[in-house]
Amino acid sequence: MSKLIFDFNNAVGKTAGPCGFSEKELEDAQRMLEAAHDAMDSKAMGFRRLPTAQDDLLADIETTAGDIRQRYDNFVVLGIGGSALGPIAVHQALFADDADINFFVEDNIDPVRLARVFGGLDLGKTMFNVITKSGKTSETMAQLMAAAGMLQEVGLPLDEHIIATTDKQNGNLARIAREEGLKTLVIPDDVGGRFSELTPVGLLPAAVCGYDIRAMLRGAADMDAICARRENNPAATYALLHVIGMKKGLSISVMLPYADSLKYMSDWYAQIWAESLGKRTNLAGEEVFCGQTPVKALGATDQHSQIQLYTEGPADKIITFLRVETFSRDLDIPKAFAYVDDIAFLGGRAFSELLDAERSATEYALLRAGRPSITITLSEVDAYSVGALLYFFEMATAYAGEMLDINTFDQPGVEEGKLATFALMGKPGFEEKKAEMDARPQKDEAWIME
Amino acid sequence: MSKLIFDFNNAVGKTAGPCGFSEKELEDAQRMLEAAHDAMDSKAMGFRRLPTAQDDLLADIETTAGDIRQRYDNFVVLGIGGSALGPIAVHQALFADDADINFFVEDNIDPVRLARVFGGLDLGKTMFNVITKSGKTSETMAQLMAAAGMLQEVGLPLDEHIIATTDKQNGNLARIAREEGLKTLVIPDDVGGRFSELTPVGLLPAAVCGYDIRAMLRGAADMDAICARRENNPAATYALLHVIGMKKGLSISVMLPYADSLKYMSDWYAQIWAESLGKRTNLAGEEVFCGQTPVKALGATDQHSQIQLYTEGPADKIITFLRVETFSRDLDIPKAFAYVDDIAFLGGRAFSELLDAERSATEYALLRAGRPSITITLSEVDAYSVGALLYFFEMATAYAGEMLDINTFDQPGVEEGKLATFALMGKPGFEEKKAEMDARPQKDEAWIME
Repeated sequence: MSKLIFDFNNAVGKTAGPCGFSEKELEDAQRMLEAAHDAMDSKAMGFRRLPTAQDDLLADIETTAGDIRQRYDNFVVLGIGGSALGPIAVHQALFADDADINFFVEDNIDPVRLARVFGGLDLGKTMFNVITKSGKTSETMAQLMAAAGMLQEVGLPLDEHIIATTDKQNGNLARIAREEGLKTLVIPDDVGGRFSELTPVGLLPAAVCGYDIRAMLRGAADMDAICARRENNPAATYALLHVIGMKKGLSISVMLPYADSLKYMSDWYAQIWAESLGKRTNLAGEEVFCGQTPVKALGATDQHSQIQLYTEGPADKIITFLRVETFSRDLDIPKAFAYVDDIAFLGGRAFSELLDAERSATEYALLRAGRPSITITLSEVDAYSVGALLYFFEMATAYAGEMLDINTFDQPGVEEGKLATFALMGKPGFEEKKAEMDARPQKDEAWIME
Repeated sequence: MSKLIFDFNNAVGKTAGPCGFSEKELEDAQRMLEAAHDAMDSKAMGFRRLPTAQDDLLADIETTAGDIRQRYDNFVVLGIGGSALGPIAVHQALFADDADINFFVEDNIDPVRLARVFGGLDLGKTMFNVITKSGKTSETMAQLMAAAGMLQEVGLPLDEHIIATTDKQNGNLARIAREEGLKTLVIPDDVGGRFSELTPVGLLPAAVCGYDIRAMLRGAADMDAICARRENNPAATYALLHVIGMKKGLSISVMLPYADSLKYMSDWYAQIWAESLGKRTNLAGEEVFCGQTPVKALGATDQHSQIQLYTEGPADKIITFLRVETFSRDLDIPKAFAYVDDIAFLGGRAFSELLDAERSATEYALLRAGRPSITITLSEVDAYSVGALLYFFEMATAYAGEMLDINTFDQPGVEEGKLATFALMGKPGFEEKKAEMDARPQKDEAWIME
C-alpha cells in the first residue's frame, strides 16, 4: 500500500542546524501543542466524520457516477473556491490516459473561457454538477443560470443534465433542485467549503472520473488515526513549526511539489491555509491579524523562477516539498550528442532520477542558505495517498487554528466583497452599501497614468 | 488602438486614505526616484533595444513561422524558467479558437507528463524549439536528448524537426546546432532569460501561433517611451510604491488578473520580480537580503480562496489588479429560475459585467481593510497590449532594481542548487561538492514520521 513519510529534519535538529527551530523554541511551544491536542480531542469537527461515516452515500455516488459515465461524454463542475479546488487537485493527481469522460471544472466567470467551453459542449451528452452549499455564490449561480438557459434553448430537460450538490434543505440551490426535480447530493451542515473535498463535492467528480473514492477515504481514515496521536504526529508537528514560524517572521508558506500531478494540491492548500488561518480576531475577540501567506510553486520548474528569491531574499519562508518516490510512468534520457562532454552525465539516466536530484539539490541549497524546509514523500500518487495527503493538510490546518486560538472554520473577511458586489450589481436591499461606495473620495487624475 | 491605464489611487492620495502611502513617504523617496531615473537614462540595458532594433530578425522569424505552420501540426517548446514563462503567458493571452497548430511548452522534467506528451506526438508532423542560452540547463538539455532520441529512432532528420534558440556561438546548444545543422535563432548576449520574451525566445513561438509579433513590439516600444518619462511614469511609480512598501513591511506583491487570458502573466511576473529583486547583497557588496515575494492569484476565483487572508491577515501585501475593459467574447446570464428572488439580479446581465463588479468590489473591500492596491486596465487583450504589459513590468523591475541598488540582472543564488544537482547526478568534476553534501549531519529518526 502507498504511504506518506514526513521528514522535518531540515527544519529542526542537527541536520537543520542554525536554519531550523531550536530545542528551546519547541519547548516553549509545548503547552500550546498540548492545548491544541486537547482541543482536537474535545471539539466536534465535522470534517473528521467524513472518512468513515459515509457508507450509504458512497453506494449512491458510485451508482450515479456509473450512470454518468455510461450516458454522457462530458462532466462539467460549476463551482468556485472549495467547490472547485479539490476536484481539480484530485483530477490532476489521478488523471489516467484512458479516461472515458471529458472532465471540466468551470471555476471562474471569465466570459471568454465560459463562451469557449460552453460553446464547445454537445449538450445532449453533457452532465453539469453545480456545487454551492448556500446557493448564494453569485459566480456559481450565474453559471447555473447560463447552463440552464442553454439546455432549455435546445429543449433538454434540466433533471437529466444537472446534478446539484448543496445543503440538505436550505438555500437557493436546494430550492431550485426541488422545483426542477434535480438529483441532489448533500453537503453536511457542519462541513465548510474548504474542508468539503471528501463530501459529495469531491467524491462525485472523482467517481465520475473513475478514481477509487473508497481508497481515498481509506487514506483519509488512516491519516486521521496518525494525526490523532499525542506523539509522533506529523500534522501537529507541521502546524507547530508553521505557527512558531509565523510568530518569528516566517510569514510565507511555500508549497513545492516535485511532480506535475501534485501541482494543484498547492492551489487547494493555498485556500485551506489562507482562508482558515487569515483572521483579524482571535477567539477572545482581540485583533491579531494573523495568518501565513501560502505560495504555490512547482519543482523543478520554479527553481528557474523562485529559488533565487527563496535562498537570497528575506528569510520569511518555510517550504514544504512534496516528493514522489515512484512515478506511474518514466522515461530514459538517451545518450544523444555524445560529442558534448558537458551533458554526457545525463545520458542513460531516468527523468525521475534527474527530477529527484533537482529536488534534493534544492533542499540542500535552501539548507545552506539557512531556510527551513519540510519534505513529505508519497511512495506513489494514487487514490489512497491523495486522500491521505488532503486529510493531512486538513488536520494540520485545524491544529494550527487551535494553536493560533482562532476560528479555523469561518471566513468573515469575504463578506465585505460580496456585499459590494451585490451593491454594484443593483441587487435590491443593497442600496445603502451602494451609497456608501459612491461616497468614496474622488480619484485624483494625477495618480492615473496612460 | 488598445491602451493601458495605470491607476494608483488605491495606494496613494485621498482615495486610498490611511491604507495608502503618505505624501511624506513619497517625498522622502524623491531622491531615490531621481537616482533611478538617472540610472535608467545612463545604463545600457540590453532588453531596451528589443522593441525597435530587430527588423531583420522579424522577417526571418515570420518566414520560419509560416513554414512551420504549413508543414507541421505540433510545435513543442523545450525550455524552463524565462524560456517557457513568456511563451506560455503570451499564448494564454492571445489564444484564438481557430489556431491551426497544436502548441506545447514542456517546462518541466516530470516523467509522467513528458511520457504523456511525447508519447502522443506524431513526430513526423512535430517541430521542437529548444531554448537555452547557455546550453547548460540540465532540464532542457535532457528534454532535447529525449526528443533527439525519439526522432533518431524513427529515422527522422534532426534538422527538420528541431530549431535551436540559443547563444550566437557559445555553449552546448550552439555547438549541437552547428554539428547537426539546426536552424538557429540567437538570444542576444546582453539579454538574460527573464527579460528575453521579446527576443526569438518569445517571438518565434508567438509567430508560430499566429500572433502579431510586430504589434507586440509596437506595444513594447510605445511603453518604452512612456516609461522613460521623468513625470507621469507608471513603471517608475509602480517600482517606487513597491520599494517603499518593501521597506515598511509589504513583503508580498500579489498579481491579481481578472481575466483567465492573463492568468499566466502572473507566473511570468512572479519570475521577473522574484529573481531580479531577490538578492543577498547590494551593489556595494553589503548583505541586504532584499526582495518581495510575488504571489499569483486569479479573480474572481481567488476571492473564494485568498481574499479572506488579504483583508484580515497580516498587512504585508500590495496588490496589483489587471483589469480588462472589453473582452473578445461575452455571454449573457439568462433570466432562469425566476421564482428565486435572491438571484434575479443576475438575470439579463453579462458575465463580463459580473466579473468587473466582483473586481471593483474586491478593490473596495481591500481599501476598507486598509490594504493598498494598484489597477492596470487593458482596454482589450491583444498583441499590442500584451507586448506593452510585458514591457511595463520589465521596466518596473529595472526601476525597482535601481532603487534597491542591486544587480537586477544576475541570479547568483541559483548556482548552489545547480552544483548540487551535478554532484548528485555524478557529473565529473563535482566530486568535492558531493563529498561536502555527504558530510551533512545524519538525519534524526525522531523527526521522520509515518
